[in-house]
Amino acid sequence: MLKAELRADTLKGLVNIISTLVDEVKFTVTPEGMSLKAVDPAHVAMIELNVGKDAFASYEADETELGVDLDKVKDVLKLASSGDTIAMEQDPERGRLVFKVGNITRRMNLLDTATMSVPKVPQLQLAAAVELPASELQRGIKASESISDHITLVADADLFELKCEGDTDSADLAMSPSDTVSIEAPSRVASTFPLDYFSNLMKAIPAETTVRLELDVDYPVKVVFGIADGRGTVRYLLAPRIEND
Amino acid sequence: MLKAELRADTLKGLVNIISTLVDEVKFTVTPEGMSLKAVDPAHVAMIELNVGKDAFASYEADETELGVDLDKVKDVLKLASSGDTIAMEQDPERGRLVFKVGNITRRMNLLDTATMSVPKVPQLQLAAAVELPASELQRGIKASESISDHITLVADADLFELKCEGDTDSADLAMSPSDTVSIEAPSRVASTFPLDYFSNLMKAIPAETTVRLELDVDYPVKVVFGIADGRGTVRYLLAPRIEND
Amino acid sequence: MLKAELRADTLKGLVNIISTLVDEVKFTVTPEGMSLKAVDPAHVAMIELNVGKDAFASYEADETELGVDLDKVKDVLKLASSGDTIAMEQDPERGRLVFKVGNITRRMNLLDTATMSVPKVPQLQLAAAVELPASELQRGIKASESISDHITLVADADLFELKCEGDTDSADLAMSPSDTVSIEAPSRVASTFPLDYFSNLMKAIPAETTVRLELDVDYPVKVVFGIADGRGTVRYLLAPRIEND
Repeated sequence: MLKAELRADTLKGLVNIISTLVDEVKFTVTPEGMSLKAVDPAHVAMIELNVGKDAFASYEADETELGVDLDKVKDVLKLASSGDTIAMEQDPERGRLVFKVGNITRRMNLLDTATMSVPKVPQLQLAAAVELPASELQRGIKASESISDHITLVADADLFELKCEGDTDSADLAMSPSDTVSIEAPSRVASTFPLDYFSNLMKAIPAETTVRLELDVDYPVKVVFGIADGRGTVRYLLAPRIEND
Repeated sequence: MLKAELRADTLKGLVNIISTLVDEVKFTVTPEGMSLKAVDPAHVAMIELNVGKDAFASYEADETELGVDLDKVKDVLKLASSGDTIAMEQDPERGRLVFKVGNITRRMNLLDTATMSVPKVPQLQLAAAVELPASELQRGIKASESISDHITLVADADLFELKCEGDTDSADLAMSPSDTVSIEAPSRVASTFPLDYFSNLMKAIPAETTVRLELDVDYPVKVVFGIADGRGTVRYLLAPRIEND
Repeated sequence: MLKAELRADTLKGLVNIISTLVDEVKFTVTPEGMSLKAVDPAHVAMIELNVGKDAFASYEADETELGVDLDKVKDVLKLASSGDTIAMEQDPERGRLVFKVGNITRRMNLLDTATMSVPKVPQLQLAAAVELPASELQRGIKASESISDHITLVADADLFELKCEGDTDSADLAMSPSDTVSIEAPSRVASTFPLDYFSNLMKAIPAETTVRLELDVDYPVKVVFGIADGRGTVRYLLAPRIEND
């Protein structure tokens, strides 16, 4: 059972981030909140998302699983302004999720969660961590888009860099410790990543969000940030591109 | 003869509504104002529109008919900001309509009205009538768009509903008498309509307009609303979709 | 050598105007400023642009030539807000131009200027001159777009006109001397021009710019206007369309 109300912009924030990886998701619902783990079809990136019940305007739930088509939730979001409250309620008898926005009621069939596997998210200990505003990463990505389809993230004691090298051109976001929120890097680490995955995630994050990047040498990057005014957390893992040269 | 001035947003309001049904129209002009009756090529919907001379900043006319290509009038509207005044004058000798916006003069050939028939608009007495803001209908339409290509309008003594049923999903706008401006329904009436026609009309109406819907059982819906700050009226009839089940 | 800083909106103004004619350009750089002359591939229009060093927030240069791909500079502009400062510096050793915006560094290969010819811009003495706001010409162009692919510019002692005649329709911008900034025309002059070239140029000019048009009978039009808050000048020549009738 789930019966909850939340602000349209909170729901939109969740949906935008998750749908960079998957359209159909299984939410795990408990009395304390909702969570999901998902991997994209190509197994390049994984997401783990938790939202506590205090992110909701009201929240009542038993333990349950909800299979949801996010494209349909996006349709619901189009009916709401960002300050509107959206009510959602599970209808277990008919296997439906029911959304209410103003005078509108939108009912949708839940998906069968039996066939939806939950990925095992590896617990990685990565050597370096950088905290910085999403806006800076967004600008670094925009600078890279016409140059190459992959980027390199570099962290050193006194520098964070997002680098993109093309045949004739290059782009570089370079931030000293004073430009960032924090840098912890015992030694220089660098890994290369597909630009499209990193870009899709970053564009789904509000510009003012502080993002934590955990990095190592030729390892996945772990991207950690708050959602729902800090009442939820996203952990996102993106596999590196290992080149043999 | 016609020589008149009106605000750009008044003209735009007229053109937006009429062009949901037809591109080429015959206006009937009298000393008291302008009117038109038109039916769409598929004969699914009819429109009857009247604008009194007080909707114009200035107005002088004899009885005449004007065949106008609305796509060209839309081009004129692109030259004006919403507060601008647009002057229009018939040039009977050259068979033209002449628009002036600021320092621009735009002349267009009038269409031959001899071949343009005027539909006979049936005078229907429908059992139920509901008045509500266009914004609510617009939201009900938006909720329906991904679900099905037809909607059902229902009026009862204590409820107005716009319903859309798909195979797995549904959407519903439900309004009690206190949500609407008024509901008069001696008994429950319901008819089903093509979503696209109803949607195109509603999207052409300013959100804050109060719309009157007249309904009966498996009968056309009559949509009545004011234009030009209440100095004009639109009556729109949309044929129901009758299903044999 | 070139090392300079300028406001993003200044750079954007230059790039928008030049790229109506060419994508790859050769800038001539001197200690006093930058200039370029370019002709479009069809040899229908020519541009001559000069920007003094006082248009820049800072400027240091020796005599040099820079071959630049404007599409790449547009990518740099997407990284900046209009009030941002953009730094640009030539890296002569690597044949690159380096832009900095905030924490981003964007390096691009310079183009080989050896094969880029500089057109000889004819010095024309034209009989008539009209000064008027770009916004009026922009509106005249918009009115013409659905009518024909060429326009006629007319100047007389007491009238400036931009005329467009189609088979059934026409559009006209007509300005008396009191509507314009100034008209000097010893006698009536008129020439016809391709709408697309004239339109592309005008749309690249800020609406509030005062534009000087120099005209004669079946001669090119010379379009002169200031850029970079009057610290630079554009002279643009557009060949007439001569019709034999």
